Amino acid sequence: MQKAMLDMSSEMEFLRKTCSMLPICNLASIRFFRRMSSRQRRDVSVKSSYLIAKTPNENTIALTSKNIWGKEKLVINGSYDAYPWISSRESYMLDADEDEYGGVIIRPECLPQTADAFATILQSSLFHWKLQGKKGVWLRLPLDQAEFVPVAVKEGFKYHHAEQTYLMLTYWIPEGPCMLPANASHQVGVGGFVLNHRNEVLVVQEKHHYSFEDVWKLPTGFILENEEIFNGAVREVKEETGIDTEFLEVIAFRHVHHVAFEKSDLFFICMLKPLSTQIVVDELEIQAAKWMPLAEFVRQPCIQEDNMFKKIIDICIARLGKCYCGLTAHQVISKFDSRSSTLYYNVVEPEDYSCQVS
Amino acid sequence: MQKAMLDMSSEMEFLRKTCSMLPICNLASIRFFRRMSSRQRRDVSVKSSYLIAKTPNENTIALTSKNIWGKEKLVINGSYDAYPWISSRESYMLDADEDEYGGVIIRPECLPQTADAFATILQSSLFHWKLQGKKGVWLRLPLDQAEFVPVAVKEGFKYHHAEQTYLMLTYWIPEGPCMLPANASHQVGVGGFVLNHRNEVLVVQEKHHYSFEDVWKLPTGFILENEEIFNGAVREVKEETGIDTEFLEVIAFRHVHHVAFEKSDLFFICMLKPLSTQIVVDELEIQAAKWMPLAEFVRQPCIQEDNMFKKIIDICIARLGKCYCGLTAHQVISKFDSRSSTLYYNVVEPEDYSCQVS
Repeated sequence: MQKAMLDMSSEMEFLRKTCSMLPICNLASIRFFRRMSSRQRRDVSVKSSYLIAKTPNENTIALTSKNIWGKEKLVINGSYDAYPWISSRESYMLDADEDEYGGVIIRPECLPQTADAFATILQSSLFHWKLQGKKGVWLRLPLDQAEFVPVAVKEGFKYHHAEQTYLMLTYWIPEGPCMLPANASHQVGVGGFVLNHRNEVLVVQEKHHYSFEDVWKLPTGFILENEEIFNGAVREVKEETGIDTEFLEVIAFRHVHHVAFEKSDLFFICMLKPLSTQIVVDELEIQAAKWMPLAEFVRQPCIQEDNMFKKIIDICIARLGKCYCGLTAHQVISKFDSRSSTLYYNVVEPEDYSCQVS
Repeated sequence: MQKAMLDMSSEMEFLRKTCSMLPICNLASIRFFRRMSSRQRRDVSVKSSYLIAKTPNENTIALTSKNIWGKEKLVINGSYDAYPWISSRESYMLDADEDEYGGVIIRPECLPQTADAFATILQSSLFHWKLQGKKGVWLRLPLDQAEFVPVAVKEGFKYHHAEQTYLMLTYWIPEGPCMLPANASHQVGVGGFVLNHRNEVLVVQEKHHYSFEDVWKLPTGFILENEEIFNGAVREVKEETGIDTEFLEVIAFRHVHHVAFEKSDLFFICMLKPLSTQIVVDELEIQAAKWMPLAEFVRQPCIQEDNMFKKIIDICIARLGKCYCGLTAHQVISKFDSRSSTLYYNVVEPEDYSCQVS
């Protein structure tokens, strides 16, 4: 938990710096990031439990409101004695922070010890958040509190996303469609086009593809968590072939949908400059690797017979002939952002192109 | 479940067509996609339960193997009678398919009815998969079987990813680090640079940002699930401002890490051509929208004082002067792929640039 607190603290620092990136960037992500971080901002956020105690005429609302739990739940009958588990109501609310969209974020560090206690306090809390007109409720359950998952689902929570050690659930209170932001939507892959001074391209044959064992392809792979595209391409080439390279440009990228887990895939084709020649094959994933004459690589039927591959190779060849300019990577540390942020854009060299300003 | 079967069937068709995209594309995603789809490929995959029955000398292995459940679990004592729940062992195995990496994918449609029954059969299945030397175990639990989640976690499963209606858990059997592929790593945002014939740029002020209420920014947002980048940019501009546009180019993209839920963010800056002039503000998200003289937009201190924003605007202006070429979107339907697949690349117009082939 201590690490989580530290992470959140550094996220907050990032947030403060990022929030000033207003004129161009995607504020939705920043806004949501702020919301998810707000549970640590005790100085600026107001705890919902505090608000509940301060809501005017709350008793009246609670006593006259229609039961929103359904028939199986206890019915409000004009007295708090109808809630046998509530002695002091405020102490039976889950500790949570408000977000700026009218929702609440339950503090995972303040959850009760047992599933029964969690069920009781979750019901009580939801009841009050509904009366308060709250919208989204965020519940992050660590792996070691998995027994709380069915409790939350029974109360109407749905899954939002999961990482190895926690599950995020959400509950959308208002009528109408859920307006909460979606989880991550894409995986990102990279492919390296590496040509040596002999006009040979670095190619591999992967294992686990016995039906395509004669096909030579570019080294490819997924980028790692929070890895830069330009680093990922260099790393994948190094891992699969042992060749050191230097990133030059993103030549093109491909966007395709409904791939693993129904997510989308962005695949960046990168031009890399070789810095070594000696191939060392990664025996875990790669069957073979070699330097292959470019003409021979292009002549492979699976490239010649396919519009997409042919186009990509045409682009790479055009780039070699300086008839094409890809996107170079630039560290663009914003005034308010000390984190790694890379802007990929196209630098037209004056010596290559005659710029015609209209 | 029927829908899931249909989805899987269409995924398989996609797979067959995609698998031939070998020479360039990211095979890892295709491979994994194949694996996750394999539970429907009864014609080509071998059920693990069938394999178990056929494993030679299995009894010997089971009787002499060290107990891998730990002290709390039943100890193997030389007789199957030590497993009181096992009458016919094969019938107490979870139905699962092998994947091509030596792992198994449990069939969610064949799970037992109760958590107790699930606990029993999961223990039994894990025991045999361990003896068989299996690697990764994939378990997809629908929302309405949330009571199985703590059972699986107790047996050592961890969370992999979740969507609204299901949770995917995994168990990595071998010693050493887990080699299973990660879940989705990125969210994707778009921003629209829309300039009219009067040299005015389309700008908005967002709600929920009271401390920045004087700042005018480009319309931005996340792309929807499985949406094209070029469609997402046009849609966001339409939703926020009511202006119809036509996608021209991706001008640049920004890559930043540790944003919402610790995921990374890819943000594509798109140049769009306006097709209408009448602004209609989205009152839910947008405070105000207007056509702002480009010079006035650029003069805003938050752009002038920030390297990144200034660079992006410089690029947009260079593009207007035909001193820059962005990436255009091309449908590149591969011979074996009937799904939507978009390749973004840079088309250098001969009339704009003098190509110097080296």
